[in-house]
Amino acid sequence: MSNSPYHLIYWPGIPGRGEFIRLALEEAGAEYTDTAHQKDGINTVLSLVNENNKGDKSGPPPFAPPILEHGDLRLSQTPNILLYLGPRLGLTPGGDADYHVHSLALTALDGLSNEPHDTHHPVAVELHYEDQLKESKRRAESYRTNRLPKFLGYFERVLAPQSAEGRPWLYGGELTYADLVLFQCIDGLKFAFPRAMARLEKSREYSNVFKLWEAVKNRPRIKEYLASDRRQKYSQGIYRHYPELDDAE
Amino acid sequence: MSNSPYHLIYWPGIPGRGEFIRLALEEAGAEYTDTAHQKDGINTVLSLVNENNKGDKSGPPPFAPPILEHGDLRLSQTPNILLYLGPRLGLTPGGDADYHVHSLALTALDGLSNEPHDTHHPVAVELHYEDQLKESKRRAESYRTNRLPKFLGYFERVLAPQSAEGRPWLYGGELTYADLVLFQCIDGLKFAFPRAMARLEKSREYSNVFKLWEAVKNRPRIKEYLASDRRQKYSQGIYRHYPELDDAE
Repeated sequence: MSNSPYHLIYWPGIPGRGEFIRLALEEAGAEYTDTAHQKDGINTVLSLVNENNKGDKSGPPPFAPPILEHGDLRLSQTPNILLYLGPRLGLTPGGDADYHVHSLALTALDGLSNEPHDTHHPVAVELHYEDQLKESKRRAESYRTNRLPKFLGYFERVLAPQSAEGRPWLYGGELTYADLVLFQCIDGLKFAFPRAMARLEKSREYSNVFKLWEAVKNRPRIKEYLASDRRQKYSQGIYRHYPELDDAE
Repeated sequence: MSNSPYHLIYWPGIPGRGEFIRLALEEAGAEYTDTAHQKDGINTVLSLVNENNKGDKSGPPPFAPPILEHGDLRLSQTPNILLYLGPRLGLTPGGDADYHVHSLALTALDGLSNEPHDTHHPVAVELHYEDQLKESKRRAESYRTNRLPKFLGYFERVLAPQSAEGRPWLYGGELTYADLVLFQCIDGLKFAFPRAMARLEKSREYSNVFKLWEAVKNRPRIKEYLASDRRQKYSQGIYRHYPELDDAE
């Protein structure tokens, strides 16, 4: 099974949570298919998250994409898919250290992916942004001034002792999937909140975090990927650019 | 190391996210200490999440509790700690099926623990509930009428084929940590939203979910635990009972 191709099932049109999986597959040079680039790819997503899907031997029904199919296995939940891919793609150190990598990825996803999503949907995911604009402004201000610096400060604290030993990564001497997750979060945040992120970058309080973003961006396979058509543009996904939610000019 | 006792580090005074870890340790009859019941336990929590903690050989600094110490290892992030404990406490089936258990636990934590928390803190975790009351009412209404039934419906869909084979659990023939997570979520939701949960229970659309709650509650060790002083009362944690956020009478 280790030689079977991977099949990523995710909404077309946005990087979204699928991007955390794509970056792992791309960094490893793994063979994979992606519904984002398939005609009728959206129907594959819809049929799997449909309430008539009761699950089967491949696994329980997925609640939401991303979904990964590999051999006989169908997995869902972003951190869970990364947990599966990590050792298979050489993106974890192995042994108990893999739990540390998992916790770092979970923390980045919580604070730098889920919380940014809530800035434009603080009241209800089923309502349009325009119908929760006032609440979004309050939430985004709190995010930019409190939560975002708190999470960046946390990752800077993790990176500082690593940097002192000449290591650019969150854990150990080699890149792990936690680094890819943090890269994608910073990248998305730069799109969503360009003014706030420029302010935080200029403060130099989080310089190792921004260096990690740069280091991942320049990994040969990631660089090639980001310049390719496989990389989708940010739009109406997790990371959205609404100028009124960013720092004032 | 498999015989060393476990050390749970969590805020005293609420079940909180620590409860997902406690239930796993209690169900397995594992030996453990708990800062919730130690004099100065709160200082242990504070020293570990302090910004001067740069991490050490036991692991990176934890962003937030729960934290588990076991032998030379210090772990954080609720799903990550459960991932570690699962095979050690006999709460996972083993092999690739462990990924299915992990995804079920992650989905329950997302929709039935993190989202309920956001109903009383939709704008900012650093603000008091009273300062986001209006937004909380909107968010709670959306939660009770859309998200909560959606997540209960998902777990009912996972449980229905299991129930048809006489199995009360989310995955396979034996209880896993995902069942303990779902139990604690339902239990907390019953405290927070008694009217909404009574309405949903009466609808009989989610009967396998409520049966699972009952089945876990009656596991001999869980039953003894719930009746003991080790089980803390709900108060100002994830699950809070504000009548104005529940269904109207």
